[in-house]
Amino acid sequence: MTDKTDVWIVTPQKIAFETPLALQNGQTLPRFDLMVETYGTLNADKSNAVLVCHALSGNHHVAGRHSPHDKHPGWWDTMVGPGKPIDTGRFFVVGVNNLGGCHGSTGPLSTNPETGGEYGADFPVVTVKDWVQSQARLADYFGIRQWAAVAGGSLGGMQALQWAVDFPRRVRHALVIASATRLSAQNIAFNDIARQAIITDPDFHNGHYRRHGTIPRRGLRIARMMGHITYLAEQSLGRKFGRNMHAEGYRYSYDVEFEVESYLRYQGDKFAERFDANTYLRMTKALDYFAPAAEFGNDLTAALKTVQAKFFVAGFSSDWRFAPARSRALVKHLVKAGKNVQYIEIESHHGHDAFLMADEPYLCAVRTYMDNIARECCRD
Amino acid sequence: MTDKTDVWIVTPQKIAFETPLALQNGQTLPRFDLMVETYGTLNADKSNAVLVCHALSGNHHVAGRHSPHDKHPGWWDTMVGPGKPIDTGRFFVVGVNNLGGCHGSTGPLSTNPETGGEYGADFPVVTVKDWVQSQARLADYFGIRQWAAVAGGSLGGMQALQWAVDFPRRVRHALVIASATRLSAQNIAFNDIARQAIITDPDFHNGHYRRHGTIPRRGLRIARMMGHITYLAEQSLGRKFGRNMHAEGYRYSYDVEFEVESYLRYQGDKFAERFDANTYLRMTKALDYFAPAAEFGNDLTAALKTVQAKFFVAGFSSDWRFAPARSRALVKHLVKAGKNVQYIEIESHHGHDAFLMADEPYLCAVRTYMDNIARECCRD
Repeated sequence: MTDKTDVWIVTPQKIAFETPLALQNGQTLPRFDLMVETYGTLNADKSNAVLVCHALSGNHHVAGRHSPHDKHPGWWDTMVGPGKPIDTGRFFVVGVNNLGGCHGSTGPLSTNPETGGEYGADFPVVTVKDWVQSQARLADYFGIRQWAAVAGGSLGGMQALQWAVDFPRRVRHALVIASATRLSAQNIAFNDIARQAIITDPDFHNGHYRRHGTIPRRGLRIARMMGHITYLAEQSLGRKFGRNMHAEGYRYSYDVEFEVESYLRYQGDKFAERFDANTYLRMTKALDYFAPAAEFGNDLTAALKTVQAKFFVAGFSSDWRFAPARSRALVKHLVKAGKNVQYIEIESHHGHDAFLMADEPYLCAVRTYMDNIARECCRD
Repeated sequence: MTDKTDVWIVTPQKIAFETPLALQNGQTLPRFDLMVETYGTLNADKSNAVLVCHALSGNHHVAGRHSPHDKHPGWWDTMVGPGKPIDTGRFFVVGVNNLGGCHGSTGPLSTNPETGGEYGADFPVVTVKDWVQSQARLADYFGIRQWAAVAGGSLGGMQALQWAVDFPRRVRHALVIASATRLSAQNIAFNDIARQAIITDPDFHNGHYRRHGTIPRRGLRIARMMGHITYLAEQSLGRKFGRNMHAEGYRYSYDVEFEVESYLRYQGDKFAERFDANTYLRMTKALDYFAPAAEFGNDLTAALKTVQAKFFVAGFSSDWRFAPARSRALVKHLVKAGKNVQYIEIESHHGHDAFLMADEPYLCAVRTYMDNIARECCRD
């Protein structure tokens, strides 16, 4: 699938799973599809597989481009590819759109086999644990007994952590980047405001908006604007936009006046057209509910006792959504549980979004860690 | 007006100004009312007057209660009153609802003399400079040539600073608390998201919602929820709510599940009923436009050159909306301009809202500063 010319073309594939999946909320999906992209080649003993998990608005399209004229590469194209830190010349990398997503995997936009109509609001609320279960089926499909690594940033890092807890023998390394062991009250609050913006949009229609031929565009736009601003650091916003005016002088109106307004409204508008509101609601709930120590009396050290994976944990200095202290909390519990962990705190002015960016010390740290994993695969 | 029994009853008064007021946006208010409360007694040479300026959602009701059964005292009741840091036994304290407000001063809810109907969306966008002009008229009304002090937190502190710049001889002391010399891109962004939530609410009707017998309740609710969460520190939210559940176990729905959701939604609902959306829009614009150095080529040190007031500046450690660094920036410019300034950085877990709270070191610092001002008044 790799192409060493200028443009690296990748193709997604949809994989069908016809066995029911029991979900954490008590419901069962009778069947499901997962939309995936794979990069690189699975080696003979299947020891070089890396699962990349996406965050709130991500999907299976991790790296490369879908056509030579595709303007935007996958969301982690700086990290994954031929010769990149997660080197597809050595690793077989799997990107997957999570259940409940809106980019091909079974979710609110899919057909509900029980009704023959679209799921819409009837699609269940899925959790990080549910995703890990579905991803384990995906590993089985590829014949992968154990991932060389499960990696992700933010909500993606939570999946890596949950994998290590739920399938101790199936993960050799977990890369948990710009993430947290659970949401704080402030995190939950921001999520709930976003949900309230969507749900109270008159076009939401209890989540069955598509039956009404509409989408809750206003709510989704506000949710995204708010999310977006919290992913960025105040300082870099200041450097990028400051108080720069979009037009000459004050207008004394509510039209765009400052550049930062123009930027954010554009981001909101674009997102509202491309992302499904029911998916957005579910992704934020998966974040809120994430509690890897829930079955261990909320004692994370106890939850980590049976973990066999080694950990790479990274936090970014200007990330105030999941500040480095949140990563250090995970490290503390890993150390207490006697686990092997490498931690790096990276100076970056990109805020929470830093995990998607090409800051050199960050890429370098992941490259070094992955190089060591590659040496293990070779020894196998 | 003071009553030294258990409950301190205060009474607002509406003062009419029948001379036109030219506004910064080029429009003119033919006449206006200011709703005020005063506490204490103006001394013979009128040297003991303190103007207290309110922030985004505040008003003239600074201290005391309106009736013996009034549940809530004024918004700065911890600071202003008999024997309190701004001691109404010594100072004549004036609280005023700003132009464009929705608590009695001329604003969107007032009658437009040109049409005989309510202003609504036609009420001009007013600025901090406009407020200071109107407050100067208020000083004239009371015969106050010079305020002993102009004081406020957040947007209120901006008024104190603008007073010192626009009327150098009329302010002896400016108390600028939890404030900033101008908004950052992030501050503007949060304001714009709040405005967009209100404006895109289908019940907004271009600001003429009351003519349509409705209010943009959803938008105002979202705006307030978002504002509120940014006024609080992540840590204190964590301490107060953590991940406490509102009900037993996960519901896998979008109803209230976590305590913090219940709290925020309640705050949003309450605010949407009591506050006017057109006023909210105007208050956020006044924040965005605040630029005391605008007429000095954006050189704040130059703007401060003619200032005669002495400054008390305070920032709070956990305030991330107007972080202490923003206060220190003002201090730096004041020092550079050769002005007299006292600065205190106060350890508090109350976030931006700390300026409204009863943290003892904060009350103590203001008390000490005001005691010194009281000694000046006596010497006069």
